[in-house]
Amino acid sequence: MQRYFISSSDFIDNEVTITGDDVHHITRVMRYTIGDQIICNNDQGQAALCRISQIAENMVRADVEEWLDETVELPIHVTIAQGIPKGDKFELILQKGTELGAASFIPFQAERSVAVWDEKKIAKKMKRFEKIVKEASEQSHRNKVPVIEKSMSLKELIDKSKNYDVKVFAYEEEAKVVNHQSFGNLINKLLPNQRLMVCIGPEGGFSPKESEFLKENEFSPVRLGPRILRTETAALYVLASVSYHFEEMRCNECHQ
Amino acid sequence: MQRYFISSSDFIDNEVTITGDDVHHITRVMRYTIGDQIICNNDQGQAALCRISQIAENMVRADVEEWLDETVELPIHVTIAQGIPKGDKFELILQKGTELGAASFIPFQAERSVAVWDEKKIAKKMKRFEKIVKEASEQSHRNKVPVIEKSMSLKELIDKSKNYDVKVFAYEEEAKVVNHQSFGNLINKLLPNQRLMVCIGPEGGFSPKESEFLKENEFSPVRLGPRILRTETAALYVLASVSYHFEEMRCNECHQ
Repeated sequence: MQRYFISSSDFIDNEVTITGDDVHHITRVMRYTIGDQIICNNDQGQAALCRISQIAENMVRADVEEWLDETVELPIHVTIAQGIPKGDKFELILQKGTELGAASFIPFQAERSVAVWDEKKIAKKMKRFEKIVKEASEQSHRNKVPVIEKSMSLKELIDKSKNYDVKVFAYEEEAKVVNHQSFGNLINKLLPNQRLMVCIGPEGGFSPKESEFLKENEFSPVRLGPRILRTETAALYVLASVSYHFEEMRCNECHQ
Repeated sequence: MQRYFISSSDFIDNEVTITGDDVHHITRVMRYTIGDQIICNNDQGQAALCRISQIAENMVRADVEEWLDETVELPIHVTIAQGIPKGDKFELILQKGTELGAASFIPFQAERSVAVWDEKKIAKKMKRFEKIVKEASEQSHRNKVPVIEKSMSLKELIDKSKNYDVKVFAYEEEAKVVNHQSFGNLINKLLPNQRLMVCIGPEGGFSPKESEFLKENEFSPVRLGPRILRTETAALYVLASVSYHFEEMRCNECHQ
């Protein structure tokens, strides 16, 4: 059943009022009519089974029939801090990262980021980004739409990182060191509802200076398998691994 | 250091002769000159540190200085059997799947495959596919280039699957069943050098008939996290999980 993310303020009593792009999707793409059922999620991630009661040009109304007791959110809050990559790679990270359960994304300007986001175009860019994560959340049946923060410097990112329980950064060089702390050991330390920040460099990786700065600020370097991943693949590896570890491994010994 | 996959027949005594697209890459893209070092992998996945000794219009020669004792291949042989998806998604699966360590890819015509690959264009298509996995192998420092098999029917795929130790298929419906066998339990059964086949449906997933046919042939249905993944994301989830499990988890209890 199709899912839509609706602002909590548009739920009044037992009625949901839907406006904006979702109206087009409901009436033209899905061709729903009065009496058809949809799922509407509010800002808190709660999902309601709803039945369409009214269709107008720019508005759809639906009655809440039942609040669903379901959650498909990752038990760990994972933030992907991504060094701004080239071209449309950040969009791929947003789409796939949303499917894989990321809670939030922070783009940051790394030393080796070739692309610089034009300040003038940033509003338009953010709007497109928001659309990508909203659609991916609907498609993957997420309870919540991930947050996309404004792009920041590495220093600002470090300030943000104080609120996280475990902090790691993907560092190619780490793949060559024998006694590094494994990504699995770090993941193992996380308890449900704790927060993981994963910092990933742009195409050229981190500079030695950035790597030192991250280490000084409690970020552990990790390798993500012995192969060299492209920057856009690293985020997906991390999220799939966290999902596998906490949702599919069913290996209770590992959590001891 | 840049890596090139060279046919074993082009290694003669301690000299490698490089022809084809790699020449352009060495001389124009990387702008290497005589005396520069490259890594050349032979068909067996062995890597040699080589020094360029001669550059001509369509040929580069290099001397083998040292055979390297390195392997970054996944300890498990993973084959991704992918229901033919729309557009260029298969190319994304090939590129990212190679980075993540897949040993081979088999495209198959599923009931719900919308795209049908034109027989006349298949040779050209395969050539492009081969180029993608070769380049991704070089970029990710793989020892071996994954094999891409010709597209086949589900029945032919089942015949192929007899040589595999564990066989799974991604089945959305499984996400709704409480007592399903977890993906982690199935992965746990694999020993180093064993073979895993992962069968993934196209955009619409498997038909109930296909699902029954797979189950009858020892494919276990698995879910890949509780969220609904797009078809191209499923292969990446599997490969990242297998890498995490065998290469990064360092959780010896899990293998008992």
